[in-house]
Parts: sequence; C-alpha cells; structure tokens
Amino acid sequence: MADEHLNQQIVARGKEFFASISGEAPSIFNKGWWTGKVMDWAMQNENFKVQLFRFVDVLPYLNTGDSLNRHIQEYFAAEDQDIPSVMKWGAKGATGLGGKLATKVMSRTIRANIEAMAKQFIIGENTKQALKTLAKLRKDHFAFTIDILGEASVNEVEAEEYMQSYLDLLEGLSSSYTKWNNLDSTSELDWGHAPRINISVKPSCLFSQAHPADFEGSVQGICARIIPIFRKVREMGGHLCIDMEQYAYKDITLECYRRIRASEEFRDYPQLAVVMQAYLKDTDSDLSAMLEWARAEQLPISLRLVKGAYWDYETVIAKQNGWDIPVYVRKPETDVAYERLSTRILENHDICHFACASHNVRTISSVMETAKKLGVPDDRYEFQILYGMAEPVRKGLLKVAKRVRLYAPYGDLLPGMAYLVRRLLENTANESFLRQSFAEEAEIERLLEDPAVTLEREIKRMPAPSQGRKSVIQNEPFADFTKKSVREGFPEAIKQVRSQCGRVCPLFINGREVLTDDRMDSVNPADPSEIIGQVCQAGRAEIDMAMEAAGKAMASWRDTSPEERAQLLMRAADIARKRIFELSAWQVLEVGKQWDQAYADVGEGIDFMEYYAREMLRLGTPRRMGNVPGEVNEYFYQGKGIAAVIGPWNFPFAISAGMTSAALVTGNCVLYKPAGPSSVIGSTLARIYQEAGVPDGVFNFVPGRSSVMGDYLVEHPQLSMIAFTGSKPVGLRIIEKAARVQEGQKQIKKVVAELGGKNAIIVDDDADLDEAVRAIVYSAFAYQGQKCSACSRVIVLEPIYDKFVRRLKEAALSLAIGPAEDPANYMGPVVSEEALEKIMQCIDIAKQEGSVLVCRDDLDVPGYYAPLTIVENIRPEHRTAREEIFGPVLAVMRVKTFDQALEWANATDYALTGAVFSRSPNNLEKARKHFRVGNLYLNRGSTGAIVERQPFGGFNMSGIGSKTGGPDYLVQFMDPRVVTENTMRRGFTPIEEGDDWVV
Amino acid sequence: MADEHLNQQIVARGKEFFASISGEAPSIFNKGWWTGKVMDWAMQNENFKVQLFRFVDVLPYLNTGDSLNRHIQEYFAAEDQDIPSVMKWGAKGATGLGGKLATKVMSRTIRANIEAMAKQFIIGENTKQALKTLAKLRKDHFAFTIDILGEASVNEVEAEEYMQSYLDLLEGLSSSYTKWNNLDSTSELDWGHAPRINISVKPSCLFSQAHPADFEGSVQGICARIIPIFRKVREMGGHLCIDMEQYAYKDITLECYRRIRASEEFRDYPQLAVVMQAYLKDTDSDLSAMLEWARAEQLPISLRLVKGAYWDYETVIAKQNGWDIPVYVRKPETDVAYERLSTRILENHDICHFACASHNVRTISSVMETAKKLGVPDDRYEFQILYGMAEPVRKGLLKVAKRVRLYAPYGDLLPGMAYLVRRLLENTANESFLRQSFAEEAEIERLLEDPAVTLEREIKRMPAPSQGRKSVIQNEPFADFTKKSVREGFPEAIKQVRSQCGRVCPLFINGREVLTDDRMDSVNPADPSEIIGQVCQAGRAEIDMAMEAAGKAMASWRDTSPEERAQLLMRAADIARKRIFELSAWQVLEVGKQWDQAYADVGEGIDFMEYYAREMLRLGTPRRMGNVPGEVNEYFYQGKGIAAVIGPWNFPFAISAGMTSAALVTGNCVLYKPAGPSSVIGSTLARIYQEAGVPDGVFNFVPGRSSVMGDYLVEHPQLSMIAFTGSKPVGLRIIEKAARVQEGQKQIKKVVAELGGKNAIIVDDDADLDEAVRAIVYSAFAYQGQKCSACSRVIVLEPIYDKFVRRLKEAALSLAIGPAEDPANYMGPVVSEEALEKIMQCIDIAKQEGSVLVCRDDLDVPGYYAPLTIVENIRPEHRTAREEIFGPVLAVMRVKTFDQALEWANATDYALTGAVFSRSPNNLEKARKHFRVGNLYLNRGSTGAIVERQPFGGFNMSGIGSKTGGPDYLVQFMDPRVVTENTMRRGFTPIEEGDDWVV
Repeated sequence: MADEHLNQQIVARGKEFFASISGEAPSIFNKGWWTGKVMDWAMQNENFKVQLFRFVDVLPYLNTGDSLNRHIQEYFAAEDQDIPSVMKWGAKGATGLGGKLATKVMSRTIRANIEAMAKQFIIGENTKQALKTLAKLRKDHFAFTIDILGEASVNEVEAEEYMQSYLDLLEGLSSSYTKWNNLDSTSELDWGHAPRINISVKPSCLFSQAHPADFEGSVQGICARIIPIFRKVREMGGHLCIDMEQYAYKDITLECYRRIRASEEFRDYPQLAVVMQAYLKDTDSDLSAMLEWARAEQLPISLRLVKGAYWDYETVIAKQNGWDIPVYVRKPETDVAYERLSTRILENHDICHFACASHNVRTISSVMETAKKLGVPDDRYEFQILYGMAEPVRKGLLKVAKRVRLYAPYGDLLPGMAYLVRRLLENTANESFLRQSFAEEAEIERLLEDPAVTLEREIKRMPAPSQGRKSVIQNEPFADFTKKSVREGFPEAIKQVRSQCGRVCPLFINGREVLTDDRMDSVNPADPSEIIGQVCQAGRAEIDMAMEAAGKAMASWRDTSPEERAQLLMRAADIARKRIFELSAWQVLEVGKQWDQAYADVGEGIDFMEYYAREMLRLGTPRRMGNVPGEVNEYFYQGKGIAAVIGPWNFPFAISAGMTSAALVTGNCVLYKPAGPSSVIGSTLARIYQEAGVPDGVFNFVPGRSSVMGDYLVEHPQLSMIAFTGSKPVGLRIIEKAARVQEGQKQIKKVVAELGGKNAIIVDDDADLDEAVRAIVYSAFAYQGQKCSACSRVIVLEPIYDKFVRRLKEAALSLAIGPAEDPANYMGPVVSEEALEKIMQCIDIAKQEGSVLVCRDDLDVPGYYAPLTIVENIRPEHRTAREEIFGPVLAVMRVKTFDQALEWANATDYALTGAVFSRSPNNLEKARKHFRVGNLYLNRGSTGAIVERQPFGGFNMSGIGSKTGGPDYLVQFMDPRVVTENTMRRGFTPIEEGDDWVV
Repeated sequence: MADEHLNQQIVARGKEFFASISGEAPSIFNKGWWTGKVMDWAMQNENFKVQLFRFVDVLPYLNTGDSLNRHIQEYFAAEDQDIPSVMKWGAKGATGLGGKLATKVMSRTIRANIEAMAKQFIIGENTKQALKTLAKLRKDHFAFTIDILGEASVNEVEAEEYMQSYLDLLEGLSSSYTKWNNLDSTSELDWGHAPRINISVKPSCLFSQAHPADFEGSVQGICARIIPIFRKVREMGGHLCIDMEQYAYKDITLECYRRIRASEEFRDYPQLAVVMQAYLKDTDSDLSAMLEWARAEQLPISLRLVKGAYWDYETVIAKQNGWDIPVYVRKPETDVAYERLSTRILENHDICHFACASHNVRTISSVMETAKKLGVPDDRYEFQILYGMAEPVRKGLLKVAKRVRLYAPYGDLLPGMAYLVRRLLENTANESFLRQSFAEEAEIERLLEDPAVTLEREIKRMPAPSQGRKSVIQNEPFADFTKKSVREGFPEAIKQVRSQCGRVCPLFINGREVLTDDRMDSVNPADPSEIIGQVCQAGRAEIDMAMEAAGKAMASWRDTSPEERAQLLMRAADIARKRIFELSAWQVLEVGKQWDQAYADVGEGIDFMEYYAREMLRLGTPRRMGNVPGEVNEYFYQGKGIAAVIGPWNFPFAISAGMTSAALVTGNCVLYKPAGPSSVIGSTLARIYQEAGVPDGVFNFVPGRSSVMGDYLVEHPQLSMIAFTGSKPVGLRIIEKAARVQEGQKQIKKVVAELGGKNAIIVDDDADLDEAVRAIVYSAFAYQGQKCSACSRVIVLEPIYDKFVRRLKEAALSLAIGPAEDPANYMGPVVSEEALEKIMQCIDIAKQEGSVLVCRDDLDVPGYYAPLTIVENIRPEHRTAREEIFGPVLAVMRVKTFDQALEWANATDYALTGAVFSRSPNNLEKARKHFRVGNLYLNRGSTGAIVERQPFGGFNMSGIGSKTGGPDYLVQFMDPRVVTENTMRRGFTPIEEGDDWVV
C-alpha cells in the first residue's frame, strides 16, 4: 500500500488530471457516432458483444458482398437477438420490394463503420499513410513507437517476411525522420534524450518454431531475426523495444533481451527495451533478476511496464491445461502490482529507463508522484499510451508529463482486426478503467482509490472462486515447459531410463515374474541399434497359466467392493504421477514420442485411472428402480469375468492404462497383451499395478507374438471379453473370432474395439488460418501422424484454397525433424521398420493419385523416418482419401461448397474424428449435425481428446460406438443385475423412503 | 356426520363405557409381561417391529434349536439393532463360558413367549382344548363363532381337508353343545334367538383354484365346499358366516352367499351370514344391492360388518398392479363409513340381522345409540369381538350390550402365526384404536370424536398423497378381473377377433402393403384347424426392397428430433391402449395365451413404448462434459442406422414392441421380422406404428421363413444392428454371422441378444410354502412354461423337501388345463407342433433321468398340449437340469444346505432369472450376492418383470448382458458422439454458465 502521504498526493494529482480532461470522451465511446452506439449496446448485452467481436474478427475474410451479407445474417439475425437499431436493417434482412437492396446498403455501412473503427487504432496500412499520421502526431507533440501488425507466423517464410517488413518500414522512414521537428528539444533527440525512431517487435512473429520446450532453440531463432532489425535501428540512432506476449514466451523473451543487450555487438548501445507485464505473478522476481543482472553486467537497461493484454487467454489456457494461473485473478491486484513494480523500477532509475504504459489515471498519477518523490530525472522515464485509445488521457497527460509516446500499430487491416478485437475487449471489460472513466462516469474518488484498498474490499465481498459445474476428475496437468524443472526433467529422466535399457523384461502372471525362452528385442526407432528391452514372449502355455490364475482370482475380485477396486486405481494413478518423467522417457526412447506427447500420454493414463475409479463409485451404488410399495428393486452391475486387454503402441501407456483400469475396476481379471513395439512400456504398467497392490492373478502381463497366441487368447473359452485398440483388420478379426462360441465356453464374449480413422479437417472460406494451419500441422504430423485421431485429409473451400495451401506448405517445410529426445524436433521416426514400409507404400500411391506439395525425403539419418508428405488434388475415390495410413501423410482436397466438404468428409468407412475451421455460425451448426464422427472439433485440431471432457471413440468402421473416458464406458465391462425383493409378508409391508405410498 | 343430538348421546355412552373399564389393559399391552415390553418396543422402533413381526411369521418353521438360534441371531443381532432388554441375551449371543447355554435358554424363552402370545388369540389347537375354552367363555357369558385357522389352500387336497376339518370340528362339538348352559335365556337359543353353534368360514381356503377372471368357476368351486358344511351346521341348528377376505374375492364371495341363501335347499334356513368390510369404497353399493336383493327375494339375511383387516395388502397390491385403491386411504373415512353402513343395516333390521364387529368404543357406542334411536329389537343385532383382543372392551360391552360374540380362531400354531402377525399389526398400527386406547392412553374426548370431524381435520392437515421417488413412467395396469367390464371384455374381443381370422396378412414395406405368393398359415394351437391368418412371407427380394426403403428413410429419421420420435411412440402406445382387449384376444387365439397373460403382454408393450419414449427424451439432451472455460463439449447420441428386429412368439407383442420401439425412438429404421407362430400379432404392431404416423420406410414389416431369409437379413451389408430375442442356438448363430464383415459393409454390426434361461427357484427350509408353492406353480406352468424367465428347476432344502413336494404335486394336479380362451384353464396348449415335439423329447429324457412326480398326459383334446410334468431326483449333471425346455416341465432337486442350493442354481450356462423363498435374512443376503442371474427375485416367483421396475435380461449364455426396460437399454441402439467447440477467438472467450472460472 502506498504510504498515506504519497497516496494523498496521488489522489490530488489524479483529481487535477480528471479536471483537466473533464467532458471529453474517447471517440469510440462517443454515443453520437455509430461505433459509440454499438459499443454501448455491446456493454449492456453480453450475447451481442460476443457476436459483434466474433464478427469483427471474421470481417476481413469476407471479401464478397454475398459472404458479408451471409455472415451479418448469421451473426445478428437470430430470432431472439437484440441488436442496436443502427444495425437492424442489415441483419434482419428487410423483405419485400427493395429489401435486398436495403440489406446490401446496410451491410456495406456495417463493414465501413467497423473498418473505420479499426482504422482508429492504426496509423496506416502503408508507409505513406503511416508517415502522414506520424507527422501529424509529432506536430501534436507526441512521440511514437511503431508496431507492425502481423498475422501469426505459422512458418519460417512468414517469420522472415515479418522481419523484412520492419526493415522495409525503417527504410521507408529513413528519408523522413531526420526532417521532423524535435519534440521539446533543440537536439536531434526528442525531449533532449529520446531517439525519434522507436519501434516495437513481437518475438513470436519472428520465429515460427518457438516453443517453451525448446528453450534454447527458441531464443536463438528469435534473436536471429531481432538482430538485423536492431542493427538497422542502431544505424538510424533509434530505439527498439521487444514486446511481451503470452506467458509461454516470457522467459524466452527475457532471455532474448539479455542475450542481445549483452552481446559484443550491442552492449554499448543501450537503446534496447523489453516489456514486463504487471499482471503476471512472476514479474516481481523477474524484475529483481533483471535489475540484478543489469548491475552485474553493468549494462543500463530499459523497461516498459504494461498491465498485460492476454488476461482471458492466459486464464483460459491455464485452466484448460491444468496449470497454475500465471496472472492475478483480481484486477486491483494487478494495479497494486503495477504501483509496486513501477516504484521498484523508478528506485533503480540510474540503471533502468522506464516507460510507463497505462491509461489508468490513478496508475499514471502514482508513477508521476513516486518519480517526483524519488527525484527521478525527466530523461529516465516516459509515458506510453495506445494510439486510438483514451484520447482524453493522452491529451491530459501531455499537459502535465510532456513525455508521451504513442504505441502505434501499422499495417494491414486483416491482422488489424485481431488487434481491434483485443482493444474492444479491453475497452468493454467490466473492470476496464476506460469503461469506468468514460462510458460509465464512475465516481472519481473511487477511480483514484488506492488499489490495495479496492482489492481488500473486493476480497471481502467475493466468495472463494467457484469450481463451476462439478466434473468427475481434475485432469492431470499437461507438461508446463515454462517451468525450468520440467524442461530439465526430461533429459534427466531419459538418461536414467537409458541406463536401464536392454534388460530382460519378464511376463507377470499370478503375482509372479515368469521368464520365457522366446524373446523379442524392442528397439529405439530413432536408432534401431539401441535395444530398449528384451521382452519375454508368452506362448499358449503362458496364456493358459494366466487364464487359470485369473479364473481363480475372479470370484473374490468380482466381489471386492467397488470402493476397494477404485482405491487400487487411485493408488496406481499416484504411482504413475510420481514417475511421470520416467514413464514419459520410456516412450521417448521406445516409441519415438516427443516430450510433450509422451507426458500427455502418461497424464491421460492417470486420468483414465482416476476417472474410472470415480465412475465405478458412481456405478457401484445400486440404483433402486420404480417406486411401488412392497417391493424393492435394486439395479447394479457385476464384472463380466476375465478380460483380455490388447493395447496399441501409439498411446502405449494411456490406452493400455485406460482399458486395463476399466476392466479391473469393474471387477474383471485381466490378461494384458501390449503391442510388440511398446512392450517395455507395457511392463511399466504391470509394475505399477503390482506396486499398487493388485491381488495375485487379477492382473497378468502377457506380451507375445500375435501369430503365436493372438487367436488362441481371443478364442479361449474361459475368456469373457476383449478390450482392443488397434487397426481395423486386427479388430475385425478379433470381433469375428470372439463371436464364435468355443467348446466349453459359458459366456457370450463382448468385444470393446477402438479401430482406425481417416479423419478430415474442413477449412471453411472464412477460417482463421493462423489457427487452422497450426492446428492442421499438429493434427497431421505430431507424433508422425501415428494417432487414430490424426488428420489425414484436409478439405479446403475454393476461395481460401491457395492462401491456405501456401501457408500449410511452408509450415510443413519449417518443421524440424529428428529424434524425439531433442525437443527442437517437431517430428521423429515412425515406430518400426514394418510401419515405415507400409507408409512408404501409401506415399507411393498418394504420389500417383495426387500432386506432391511437400515430401521431406531429404533426411539422411538412421532410424525409421517416414517423409512428411502432403499431396493435393486428392478426391474421395482415391485410396489416399479412404485408407488409413497411420503416418505423416496428409491429403489435401479442394471443394466448392461447405456442403460438398461435409459430404467428402463423411465419405469414408471410418467415423472417428474430424474438425472444422469456420467462423460461420451456420456452417458450424451444420457440421455439428452432419459431420458424423465420434469426436468432432470446431475451430480446433482433431487430436488430443481429454478424459471426461472429450470422451473418445468412433463408429462405423472406427469402432463399436464406445467412448473411452466417458460415462458409458465402464458399463461395457459389466453385466447388469436386478434383485427384486418382495417385502410384503402376511400383508405386512414396511414402507420404504421414496415409495409411492398413500399418505 | 351423525346428527348432533345423536352424536352427544354416542359420546356420553362412550364415556360411560370408558369409565366402566378404566384401568384395564388388554393383556398384550401389559407392560409387566414379556409381550407387553416387546410390543412397547416395537411401537417405538419401526425397524424392530419389522424384524419382530417377520420373526413371528417364520417362527413355526423353526423346528430345531439350531434353526431357532440362527434366526434369532439373524433377525435381532445386527450391529445397529436396538432390541428390548428382555431379548438381549438371546439375540446378541453371549460369548464366553456359559454363553452358548445362555443363548439357548434365551432362545427358548423367546419362542415360548411368542407362542404364548399366539395362544392368547387362539381357543385351542385341538378339539379338546377348544371345547374347554369355549365352555369357559360361555361361563363368562360370551357367545362364540369359530374360525378354523388354515394355511392357504394351494391345491384341492388342502381345500378338501379344510372343509373336512370344519366337518370334524362340528362333529366334535355335536356331543357337547347341547349340554351347555344357555346365555341369558331359557330357550335352546342364546339370548332367546341365537343358535349356540356359530362358525365362520374363509372361502378362499375352500377352493384352491378361485380367481376373479373365472368368476363362475370360482363361485361354483367355493359353494361346493360351503354347502356340506352348512348342511351340517343346519343339522345342528347352527349359524354359518362366510368371511370376507381380499378384495379380489369380494364379488365372488357375495355371489356365493346369494346363491346358497337363495338355493332350494337353504332358502328357508336364514342362519347364513356374510361379512362386509367398511373400509371398501364399494361397500355402500354392495350393501344397497344386497338389501334390494333380499327384499326382492324376500329372504331375510344376516350381515357382519367389519372394518377390514387387509388394508396394507389391498393398498400395496393395488399400487403394484396400477389399480385404483379399493380401500379408504384415511382411517377415519372407514370409521365414518362404518357408522353410515351400520345405520343403513339397522334401518333394515326387519330383513337384515346385524353383527357389529369392532373394538372401537366410538363405533360400538354409535351402533348402540343408533339402534336405540331406531328402536331396533335386541334380537336383530349383536356385537362381535376378536378372541384375545381388547379384553377390557369385551368385558365392558358385556355389561351394557349383553349380546357379545367372540370370534374364536382354532387350530394349529403354524397358520396361527400368520394370524398373530395380522393381529399384532392391527394392534400396533398408528391409527389403531386399541393402540390409542390402551397403549397410549390418548384422550377419551378425542377417541370418541365423530370420525367425520376427525377426517375433516386430517384432510386439512395432510397434503395430497405424495408420489414417492420419481419414476419414469406409470406402468400400464394389469387386467383387473374384479371388474365385470374386464371379465366381459375378453369373450367379446375374442369373438370380434375370431371374425377376422383367416385373412391374408401382407408385408408392410416403405409405407405400403406388399403381397407375396409364399404364404404361411398361422393356426390356433388349441385347435390347429382354425387358421388365424395367411401370412405373406418375405424372401430376399423383399428384404432388399425393405433395406433400400430403410436406407432412404434413414437420413431424415435419424435427424428427426428425439422429441418427435418419442411422440411417435407415445401415439403408438395410446393406440395399443385403446385396443388392449383386441390385441390380447389375438394372443389368446394365435399363441394360446391366457387372458391375464395376454393382457399383461400388451401392457408391457405399452410400457416399453412409454418408457423408451421418456428415456429418449433424457438421452436426447446433449450433456456438457467437463467444466473448463473456452471449450464446450457436448456428448450426445445418434441412431446406428438400420436395425433388424427379430422377435419371439412367446411375448409376441411386448418384446417386439420393446425392441422395435427402442430401435425407432433412437433414430434407427427397422426391418421387423416376427416369429412365425405369432406373425399375425406382429402385423398388428405394424398397423399400430402405421396409424401412429411412422414415416415411409422407417418401419418395415417382413415376416418370413428363417431358412429363406434369416441369414440373408443378418448378413446384409447395409444392416447396422440386430435386436434379437429368442433361443440360444439362433442367437449364437446371429452373433457369429453378424460379426463377419461383408463386402460393402461400412459399419461394425451390433447385436443385442436376449436368449434362454434355465431358471431355478430355491426353497429354503424356512420358506413360506403358502407363497412358494403358488409362485413356483405360476413361474413354471403359467403360459405353459413358455417364458425365458420360467422356472424350470426348483431346488429344495432337505428339511422342508417332503412337505413342499407334497403340496407342489397336489397343486399341479389341481390345475385346470385346456384352451386359453376359457379363463377356468390355468394352462393351455404349447405354441406349435414343433414345440410340442421338442418338449416331448425333453420329457422323455427327464423321465429317464429322474422320477416322475406329476405327468398330466391324460388329456384327450385336439391342440398341442404338452403334459405338465414334474420330475424329482434331478441332479446338476442331468440334461434336464442344464438344457432349456421351454415348456411345462419342472425339475425338482434336493439339497442339503443353502450353499449347495446356490451352487446348483448357478451350475448352468445360463444366467437369466432365479428366485429364492426364504425367511432367513442371511440367506437372502447371500442369494442377493451369489445367485448370479440377471433377474433375481426374493420371496417372489421368477417371471413377470415389469418395465422400469425390473429391467430384464441375463448374461452368460442368456444374453449379452443387456436389460430391456432399463436405463442402459437404449444406448445400445446408438453411437455416442462428442462435439467440442473451442470458443476462444483472439483470446476472447465467452464464459459459459458452469465453467470452472476464476471468480
């Protein structure tokens, strides 16, 4: 909390400030204007706000009148939609004579007004416009820093272009800037100390392959493109600020700053700044570290402190990934942090120049008064305000502080719209200072209150955060590579696991290890000479042995209480959780999974255990049926008996853990046969159950050759059911074999089968390509496309085809390929030589059927590397469009209409996953109904289903119509029973609670 | 409401009455006594009361010390059981030295006390004891009416014995009764007008085959055994009263009275009375009718008016069967009715003698004062009180009314215990006058209040009857044969249906009737010369035609809203409900179903439609999964596509309606193939869907020869699923065929199969045989045993074996066999010649394997009659114990222990239904866990599962572990889908209700 005297000064200063700007409002809130009316409506009507902002987002893609009209109808013409009168004609589509014309006129008006709104925030779409605006700004005594608006760089070409656009801009400015008048100074520097040229760059746009797991690679990739810009800036005597974006890039960005600032080339040129975000909980320590580093290196630094613009995003992403929320949850906490952090910076003004970036009068006043109190010289701090926002504030600020710099976006309207959405969001957020100051005319006292006081009051008023709808489990968090411990955990675990490689891996039957003479080497697909384990192979004798053990264990396991069985799973989950790095490392080495993918796989396995445990508690409680008196009907379940669980190698822990835990928790005994290539990983699962205390015979680990014991296991008369995940041919064979009743068999066998997919992603003509390209690359090539959910067809609407394909192609060419143990590599080897051969055949077919867009067959390394391949001109009748490949091969298909896209998407025998990128509400709705797959994703990639949130599985030839991690899954492992008790004896009938009784 | 003056007199009279008996309590409530303490406890502790009454009920079966001790432990030694101190030793089983002995002693004490309690209510177990008690009673100035306690007559031998026991009793009295002193009279008649000999008979005990559907047969059967008794009574100048029992027999009983009273032989002997029950809503009109009849016939009558002793039973049975509750729901309503009815009788004293049977002082006072007011001569009314109950009342009454007759039960303790339970229940019911008067010393004013006033207050205080736990549907009521309209509905409907027999029955494809040349006659199994219909047979061409129609209809049907699909079912249910008699009649004629069975079958079909309609509404609402912000996951279902429904003939409407409606409501198109013998019934179902408005192609009716089109249908590549109910061999064949993927097939086929059973009923050594014998006969022989749920094995504990088998054998011999259209027949023909042949083979095997107990092969009629057969000495290894027979053949197996019974019960490949008759809490609990069948019934027969209340189906070789009419059924007909929408755009994320959000 600011000390009382200082606080009084701040408040006094703020009041003066408000007095000086009284009666003015930022243009966007001017209610006389179109935008003012619309914004006003948006603030009062949450649903309209959502539609409006989404419409703004898609607007730049609406290049034809038809498309524009259609979207206006879809976004705003819903029956129950309340829209402001200035939009009514356009949306409600006046009928009758002249109606169509009226609609057209209004549509154009809407577009023009929204574009005008966007332009308010942008200094120009080209150098000429920009120069004109800049000249005007300087005439009005404002300095600037230019930020080039960019789409997300989804490939290296785009990143390179982005860099080039900065160089071009600087080149464009080079002839003019020397001619500008100075700001309040007679020297060449503004205010006597600040370079006229000042630009801001976004690191993520400069390197398309940046990601936190590959910290060093990301830093190098970004620095490599900042340096040429900074060189040019220095040539012009200018200043460069590295912007701060999402939390995921924060440490990378700070490291980039330090590395360039301290580099031989630039250490004597201090005009390099970096941004810090007050809303991050990390910023106190980051700031301390930065200041210490500056003093240690004796390098003056420059910091821009902002509050932070990604609050929604950070919060949602953290919630979705199960991470700690990195930002302060309450707005005043950020305001308090801002005052604390700015004070800290001002105290260090000798080594750190400070740019205060805020529109909040209280915050600005606080910085001004603190600087005054600390005697900070004028040339050590300045104020920054967004161009087009809070005009009254910038005007007032100029009067008192003089040194005001405008953050000035420049560039195309297309990325500009994304920027506009962010600004609108900021302007209309409930907690927005701007909204409070100008739109709602909140009391000035309140606006100038010490935020620590506001916070205290808020905490008192607000209850603890709600948990929302009750979900069955808290999903296991994904690997958070922003944490150093996580980044370092992997190489350590790989090293440790590697030291255990090559050992003999026994069977596990009836609580004991069993060795067999027949052994199979499991190898590292990135280097087949590295043996991961020598896996003992079960033959028929071992299957009999395991079956006998399971048969003996069954009676007591089936009657063990659901609670106890659930506890076994929860213990197993705990063990896996503790060993998550080790278990992930096995996957990196044995099946070539990337770090994040391996970690997610183990996490999913844990989720299955936790979810099924809780589901069993739910299902384990008998349900009373009906309500008539005199009878009590209880509906409950019992385990089917002995289950064979036959797992795949691609999610070697998750899916096996899921199927086995489902079988176990429902009271079945299990014979678990892992896939050959992931047998060692399979044995880790067996060890976990053993440690968790599974009774002898209840869980048996029987890896083996399908040719030797596959049919034997499936046809075994004592077997009750089979849970299988794998290929269609094997699955269908199992279903057929299991359906034939064998001599001595006493039970109809159940088969739970999850088979393949031939999954399509539709790219609509209004799709957000920044998102679509990244998601499609990930869906198609992450883990080398070896997922049943992987995207293997992308179906693209004609109007957007060229643009999409260009970006996709370059994105595919930008990916690093190599061993999974190096986090720089996006893609690695496929699992086995056999898999490689099969994929190569598919690629041959694809090449014959279509035209190759990408085929990365240039790798010359050991290991089973299948070339990343993209083929276009594929049609539904092609084998490439129908047959599952299970490798990094993507077919691109071009369609004329969205309906055709849906038809093609559905035109395979599979029905597993699919996705649609579209911003047309109607097309999304159409897809929701008619894109018939087990898991459909709207505006998201097609992989990565999460237990409980996205119960997973398909139908048609993709499986039996069962969903893992969902509410109907466990029932498949059980037989329902009903016990009906007649409770009437001699007419005497105890009446039970809930009976439909007479009184 | 009594008029005010009269009411004052009644109250005054009541007060006098109370004053005269003040300080006295009926012996049972005497707290100094053991029974007093125990009763006191029971009234305060509902759970103990239940245990105590149930224990009293079973006590007579506990013939060994071990058995007694064990039951005491089981009933009273539960951890949380509060028991009175006088029972503690026995129940809690004192441990340590002398503990065992103490337990034994206490057990004996408990038995002795309870037996003593029972003896309080019984005048003697043999004639000698009875004569002694009667002499004493008469000395005390009480008259009597003797009622012989009897077990339920489950066969005609028992009914005959019961009659004989009356004749014997009368014989025993004949030497004494003339020697007794008169009561207040000098004539030979008591009080100058009443015969000394007075007996009461229970009609249901006199004819074991009485049931309301066979009204005339029941009346004749009962009269035939009352008449010899009445003849003897008349010889002795005595009086006979026909007791009134359950509501089901009421009209039969009244008719018996009228018939005997008016018969040539007895019309001049007026000493015949019948009982009316004031608690029946019918009694007002019954009384009017009886009085009118008496006047019309000019026959003086005699009525005993009671309040009614089966209130719990009547209410529970009505609730369970969906009937109107025949009794008044509120106790004071009955009291009001009693005053109204007694007044009515007294007003008619010239033609009707009146016996007022009540212990309620208000009621008695009311009768006395009313009689006085009306000037009814003393010889026209008397008072009756139960022997052993309400001793103070009887004493008081004697003083004022003189004419007091005691209702005096006589006979064995075994049926005596059942009687005791009824009396205890009466004594301890909350509303019991006795409980209020003596146990709780309620205020006298309140006890004497006009019951109309009490009622008014109660209605005001009480809310409307609660409906208890919400159930999905109200089940369709069973046929209520107490209603004349129902009894007459059947012959009428049969006549009408018969007039339509013999017609050509077409296929129904794509909304149109289709005729084929290949036809099959469906015949009446009771008379194969009667052709029910000429059924067109579908061949492969028709299957293709139907498949094409279904394929075309599918897209739009699958996307029809769940609400609309549900409405189709509800409309169909309405149509079936309106035609229930006609639909039942088709079954009587085409498959030989008895009236009640046929009606229940149609009702079940309606239930399926109603239940699945509502289940679909539940499942049709997408479920949101998970709660993280920024994504919305919806979990929902879609129909699988085209379903083949292959129905059985034994529940020709219900099961086909169930499977087809499940398939339809879930969005599938249907090809329905009925079983050959029930094809005409199948066509009625098709007509119902058609009338309900099923779109063309959605439902197709394709009866046909399995040999021609069975495999073709199942193997059809366009088929999505098969729902089958039928035999194991056919079911397994379908499962196997469906599992093989055919050329062009795009979907893994699902098979929902309900197959056979080999169901056992266990009869424990403490089973209530009255219930067990009846239920087993019904489970084994109702509808000729042609139910998959039918009992085909009865497993009997050694100690009770002989007794049970004797009663069972005679019960089987007592059944009438013949055409189902005559309601007198319990059993009819089996469905076809083929079925008959198969059953005959099984009987041959059974005869070889065991010893024949019953084989009713003496019928010489046309039709496919399989002899009702019971074979004993069957062991688990016998084919008769393992193979499904599907006919009226029952194997009896003898076991030493309950554990062995369970082992044997489970020792088949089937696991469908089962039942246990036992009164051992531990054994019931054991069965609940270890008697592993789909539907287990405790103290009930094994057939007659009701939709929703008893979801039906088995596992092992009895089916795939699916339950019709249960919450998991519909999901089998659908594929689950999940649609996940990423709702974040440019970081902008609308927060949905229920999100796990930050504030």
